[in-house]
Amino acid sequence: MSTLEALASPLPERPWEELEVRIQAGDPQALLQYIDGMSPTETARAISRLDQADQSRLFRLLAPADAAEIIEDITDTQAADLIEDLAPAHAAAILEELPSDHLADVLGKMDEDDAEAILGEMDPEDAHEARALLAYPADTAGGLMSSEYLSFRSDRTLEAVLNDLQRRRDAYAGYHVQYFYVTDREEKLVGVLRMHDLLFLPRAATLAKVMIRDPLRVRVDASLEDLRDFFEEHDLFGVPVVDAAGCLAGVVLPEAVEDERRKRAVHQFLGLSGIIGGEEYRTMPLLNRSGRRLSWLSLNILLNILAASVIALYQDTLAAAITLAVFLPMVSDMSGCSGNQAVAVSLRELSLGLVRPNELLRVLRKEATLGVISGIALGALLGGVALLWKGNPYLGLVVGGALAANTVVAVSLGGLLPLLLKRLHMDPALVSAPLLTTVTDMCGFFFVLRFAAAVLPRLGG
Amino acid sequence: MSTLEALASPLPERPWEELEVRIQAGDPQALLQYIDGMSPTETARAISRLDQADQSRLFRLLAPADAAEIIEDITDTQAADLIEDLAPAHAAAILEELPSDHLADVLGKMDEDDAEAILGEMDPEDAHEARALLAYPADTAGGLMSSEYLSFRSDRTLEAVLNDLQRRRDAYAGYHVQYFYVTDREEKLVGVLRMHDLLFLPRAATLAKVMIRDPLRVRVDASLEDLRDFFEEHDLFGVPVVDAAGCLAGVVLPEAVEDERRKRAVHQFLGLSGIIGGEEYRTMPLLNRSGRRLSWLSLNILLNILAASVIALYQDTLAAAITLAVFLPMVSDMSGCSGNQAVAVSLRELSLGLVRPNELLRVLRKEATLGVISGIALGALLGGVALLWKGNPYLGLVVGGALAANTVVAVSLGGLLPLLLKRLHMDPALVSAPLLTTVTDMCGFFFVLRFAAAVLPRLGG
Repeated sequence: MSTLEALASPLPERPWEELEVRIQAGDPQALLQYIDGMSPTETARAISRLDQADQSRLFRLLAPADAAEIIEDITDTQAADLIEDLAPAHAAAILEELPSDHLADVLGKMDEDDAEAILGEMDPEDAHEARALLAYPADTAGGLMSSEYLSFRSDRTLEAVLNDLQRRRDAYAGYHVQYFYVTDREEKLVGVLRMHDLLFLPRAATLAKVMIRDPLRVRVDASLEDLRDFFEEHDLFGVPVVDAAGCLAGVVLPEAVEDERRKRAVHQFLGLSGIIGGEEYRTMPLLNRSGRRLSWLSLNILLNILAASVIALYQDTLAAAITLAVFLPMVSDMSGCSGNQAVAVSLRELSLGLVRPNELLRVLRKEATLGVISGIALGALLGGVALLWKGNPYLGLVVGGALAANTVVAVSLGGLLPLLLKRLHMDPALVSAPLLTTVTDMCGFFFVLRFAAAVLPRLGG
Repeated sequence: MSTLEALASPLPERPWEELEVRIQAGDPQALLQYIDGMSPTETARAISRLDQADQSRLFRLLAPADAAEIIEDITDTQAADLIEDLAPAHAAAILEELPSDHLADVLGKMDEDDAEAILGEMDPEDAHEARALLAYPADTAGGLMSSEYLSFRSDRTLEAVLNDLQRRRDAYAGYHVQYFYVTDREEKLVGVLRMHDLLFLPRAATLAKVMIRDPLRVRVDASLEDLRDFFEEHDLFGVPVVDAAGCLAGVVLPEAVEDERRKRAVHQFLGLSGIIGGEEYRTMPLLNRSGRRLSWLSLNILLNILAASVIALYQDTLAAAITLAVFLPMVSDMSGCSGNQAVAVSLRELSLGLVRPNELLRVLRKEATLGVISGIALGALLGGVALLWKGNPYLGLVVGGALAANTVVAVSLGGLLPLLLKRLHMDPALVSAPLLTTVTDMCGFFFVLRFAAAVLPRLGG
């Protein structure tokens, strides 16, 4: 009942102001109580609105475990920014309370120096685990697995396992305990048992006797797509991950796979919009935000200058038929739009595995055909507008023809670029759009002005 | 072991060709065996490459339950396209094998007439359930809940429940049976019991005696954000959903919430890139694809004509200083890029709940400051280039000043637009970009040409 009401009750408009008051008052108990009353979204919003001094004070007032709960409510990027501002020993104490995969995600968003300083202050075993997880690419089983799983040697009895669970129950709280895994002397995965089998099987039996042998598993280098396929085929609560030698390295949960897929979708969306170097929030320092945005914009302006130089080459043609100046940005803008649609479709098909990076010819054929149809339609539309406006059929032909030709270029290139970039091991989400726009601008300007030069005497002013 | 090897073995380059051969041969057994050997991603890719006749033949050869497994491997959009081509009675038989929430997702992607024809052929009870799910918005608990849950009246005994489970075990296969829910005579949710409590509690007891009372729940209209918060706070395998009267309506699983969040991220990404009216795959019919892309492009070309008309107004100024023509597209393109970055940050913060649609002033303050910094930097850069190129400081001032001013407009507007559109109940992902580009183009052209007109005699040719 409580949740229903918590969800229904209107949240305070500016909860961070109340939070500030409690931070200043410095009573950890009252603070914790107030934070516990907020939803995770509300907590994330409130924390992000505190200034840096209040954030640090808040994290000093709370016990590491309570601070870690706040870290779990916010995105990895926000968590990394916040943690970086704390003393390494304090940061380490908080991060040790996180699940290992989340810990690795947060450390992965930090500067390497900051992350190393924090790892140096951590319990050596935890630090070792975290370094191991950080070593794997984020979108492989190694990068997605967590270390909170239970494994036992195959020669142990169920009695021994039950005793261990009793004795170490505090350490195991928060573990994913639907299954436990059985290894041999060399740490190789040899079996699995469902947790509730412990209740029904004879206690004197060794695990080797009662375990399910040769359980399903994936390798540390299994891709996100492999993992998605795995969980679509097998309705399991987790899959053990083994290294090249077959040794148990961790466990991947289906939630981790879905979460990473969502992060990829967000990454594509932000990358195509020119937000690079990770996520941006308006609570980040202004210079930090503007620096990152400008680094992408400056590259773009250089590409833009390159593209516009085509206009400079044909300046005389343009001066002789100044009306063309109205159409130049239209042709380049429209082609950019057409090309971006094709980029989006390719990125989506790539991430679903519906197209492979080597299927260039297939994509070219599909997009070129579509480009011809779009080109004719849009060219006729714009050419018609030009004709009606100036009553000059040559102007209509030049403008419409240029848009038609450039649409074919833009749509074909837009479809191909993500595949090409993927083959070159570059990030298609970040690189496709600037590259596409530069080429379609150059070609668009060229087509308009070159076609115009051919019929210049007939274009009039 | 099998999965490890299946994942490691190289997949055939063109599995759909083998599939075609087996479809032509018409042996359901051999066909099923071949499909079972493919991963879900591989199945999705192969199915999508078959022509429509082969797809229909394949689905006629397979039993409905096997066909439904293929449907589960592909996206809702692809499933809807495929199902629409089948006879309604056949489509209904296949769809009835899907989990209720997935069924509603697929029907939701179809034309209303097609969906109604299929619903008419379904078992009335299933059709009623599906219609009920379809009636709720897709991003609320009502739209995300599934009907495969177990509930019993509170006056029944555990014995009776166990007997029911035995008797109807076929019907219950594939149900989410971590919990079962207890209702009173009016179907109101009054309790919950974990499935494995059945094993330990006295069989003669009524559910009313042993259930956990007043369980956590959400209402049918709980938002995606509420549900995300719920599962972040409560580590549960599902939450019961109740209607306004407190009656049990369904169960939402955490996977459904993550899945919908990923779909939202994909929707934003596709929408901003101009892919509207749902997803597009290159296996869709050409005219269908080009029609949808053109519908967005044609709107854009009209907005573009509107924007370019500013240039037509200042044609004389431009003719007198033709060099400006080189800079017009640069100023408008760069401002578009700057504005799109701000749009992306706003969309992201909105979907995380970090900013509310009414916080216009906060966003304006944040973005305007950043816009001034970006504007000065980019304006100085472009102005410098103009100065170096033509050696004319006035040209540098006009071009740099225009870009600086327009960057402030673009960044501020880009930040605000998603919030404004959200307040107007329009889809920010679809509408932000075209609107932004139109305004920044118009303003960009205006600033360049108006500033130029003011110092025209000093600009030279």
